[in-house]
Amino acid sequence: MKQLIVDLDDRSYPIYIGEGILDQISTFFRKHQINDQSPLMIITDDNIAPLYLKKVIVSLQESGYKVCEYIVPAGESSKSLSVLEKITGVALDAGLDRKSSIVALGGGVVGDLAGFVAASFMRGIPFIQIPTTILAHDSSVGGKVAVNHPKAKNIIGAFHQPQMVLYDTSTLRTLPEREIKAGLSELIKHGLIWDAKFAEWNQLNAEKLLALDSESLEYALYNGCKIKAHVVSEDERENGLRAILNFGHTIGHALEAVSQYNKLLHGEAIAIGMVGAAKLSVHLGYPQRIYKETKSVMKKYGLPIQIPNHLNVDEIMEAMLHDKKFSEGQVVFTILKDIGEAHIQRGISIDLIREIVENLRLEE
Amino acid sequence: MKQLIVDLDDRSYPIYIGEGILDQISTFFRKHQINDQSPLMIITDDNIAPLYLKKVIVSLQESGYKVCEYIVPAGESSKSLSVLEKITGVALDAGLDRKSSIVALGGGVVGDLAGFVAASFMRGIPFIQIPTTILAHDSSVGGKVAVNHPKAKNIIGAFHQPQMVLYDTSTLRTLPEREIKAGLSELIKHGLIWDAKFAEWNQLNAEKLLALDSESLEYALYNGCKIKAHVVSEDERENGLRAILNFGHTIGHALEAVSQYNKLLHGEAIAIGMVGAAKLSVHLGYPQRIYKETKSVMKKYGLPIQIPNHLNVDEIMEAMLHDKKFSEGQVVFTILKDIGEAHIQRGISIDLIREIVENLRLEE
Repeated sequence: MKQLIVDLDDRSYPIYIGEGILDQISTFFRKHQINDQSPLMIITDDNIAPLYLKKVIVSLQESGYKVCEYIVPAGESSKSLSVLEKITGVALDAGLDRKSSIVALGGGVVGDLAGFVAASFMRGIPFIQIPTTILAHDSSVGGKVAVNHPKAKNIIGAFHQPQMVLYDTSTLRTLPEREIKAGLSELIKHGLIWDAKFAEWNQLNAEKLLALDSESLEYALYNGCKIKAHVVSEDERENGLRAILNFGHTIGHALEAVSQYNKLLHGEAIAIGMVGAAKLSVHLGYPQRIYKETKSVMKKYGLPIQIPNHLNVDEIMEAMLHDKKFSEGQVVFTILKDIGEAHIQRGISIDLIREIVENLRLEE
Repeated sequence: MKQLIVDLDDRSYPIYIGEGILDQISTFFRKHQINDQSPLMIITDDNIAPLYLKKVIVSLQESGYKVCEYIVPAGESSKSLSVLEKITGVALDAGLDRKSSIVALGGGVVGDLAGFVAASFMRGIPFIQIPTTILAHDSSVGGKVAVNHPKAKNIIGAFHQPQMVLYDTSTLRTLPEREIKAGLSELIKHGLIWDAKFAEWNQLNAEKLLALDSESLEYALYNGCKIKAHVVSEDERENGLRAILNFGHTIGHALEAVSQYNKLLHGEAIAIGMVGAAKLSVHLGYPQRIYKETKSVMKKYGLPIQIPNHLNVDEIMEAMLHDKKFSEGQVVFTILKDIGEAHIQRGISIDLIREIVENLRLEE
């Protein structure tokens, strides 16, 4: 088992990563003095509930915790204010108070939703993350929680740090292959933006990671979380450095927004976005290898690198210009100066971005 | 004009109190570097909009600000997640971004709602309070913002400090008499819990304050804000000291909850609650004058001191025990050790509280 601390002064918290952590869940709750006088609420979805919910509840109850649950339908549509209102009603009925904790058992959707329930219930109560996807290694570090508005994703939310993150790698075995690949996309990103050695390791260990080899997963998740944690520690509220985490996301979010049918997964969309941002980096004068290696690592992990033909360039550009990452109307892009070295570039011409997007349709 | 600073490290902010501040609104916005590149949104209600909205918008536009507006129906029912979702949609359409500010123009309902919009929009954007009621002197200090859930008031919210508070005492002239009295109730509370001299001043100046004498109002609002600001500075997230601000609120909230018809105003309910808490203080062995003076000051301001006959004691007790202020099932009460000296008393017997409530029906 590996452990790391996300260093945020009085909001610092530990992340535990390893095989079989769920079997010792109450030990971790006791160790971190999670209150046992007030009821806990576990929020999960209907994919995860049949797999792990009973185990978690029984283990916590046997250790003396009062536990209630709320199961949402799996998928993005559960990240809504109306679901938040329903959960809040159940929490009130169950007698949750200011010392109660909310436990998120699931992937990014459950983490974001449960995190915003915790951030807003009685103006903020403790929150514990139990991620069950690879992608959630990313969302469980940094405290960004939110629900969607019909007009925009993640637009209603908060910064709310968890008390701890319990990452049991054995839960990843039940993921479908497509989600495994897509989840590894953010891990690859963390190497590319921050750590050339980890980026190289990712190039060399694709096979092991795709096979969910336990030791390799632990190593990669630990490094991914560590890089994210380091960036977040420097810039908790996303005023500067944190924007490097958006590498691949500007184009990626636009692709997600316009791919209503045959929907791209988040990790797939940002894989294409990273190839685009790498190409932009080369256009801006940085080394050719940035593009070459970014493209090659995506291919090794079976991730897409080409914008699907059915997507319309005008619509992609339109979606990109409405993204909340465009501060004050300025076009800001996270690029690489080299592998392992990200840079936030301002004032890029929209024509150049359009050219990159058009080229991404021809990538192979 | 008077000015004070609410001291909260990097979240510190100024409160300006005086006659005619709204006439110079853009000067204050410029002075505090409110961003003029991103659009602002003014949130107000349909009582206040006809009085001041146009003036505020024109003044800001003339100074170069882009301004949009959202007018909610006056009253508590606007503090809902569905209204928040609608406002967020309008904000998105108007192009608000992370550097935009939300301006709350109105009383406590508008402040709480607009504050939570600002706290949650893109995970938190700047927020400016322009209170137009006496009661809002209280809610505009401390950063507590929230909306209601159908099952409980203020249960979904955040701590989100404003950038500044602009308090124009001339706006108070349009308040109905009953609301003036009820608003002064929280001012009186601030004297009783913290400052014996201010408590005495309140005893002596009822007539002037009720007549909205400009100088007296400025003095009283300044002192009320100063006391609240001092308490909040010591305990921003309500872990300890801040609970003294709940003086009169435990019984008061219960009275508000059960008085569905012939509804008591917040200030009226807590006036009765303060008389009850003062009586409880005397029961616990503190000086008789606490009760005598609390009761006498309420009478001077024409505030109620007796629980209306149509309210049922069982229902009041039930409502009180469901209040979120009862941490972990313990009965906690803010009492006075003397005029100007509040104390948080734990472990009070429910029978004693019931006796106090029953006596409050006979008070005269």
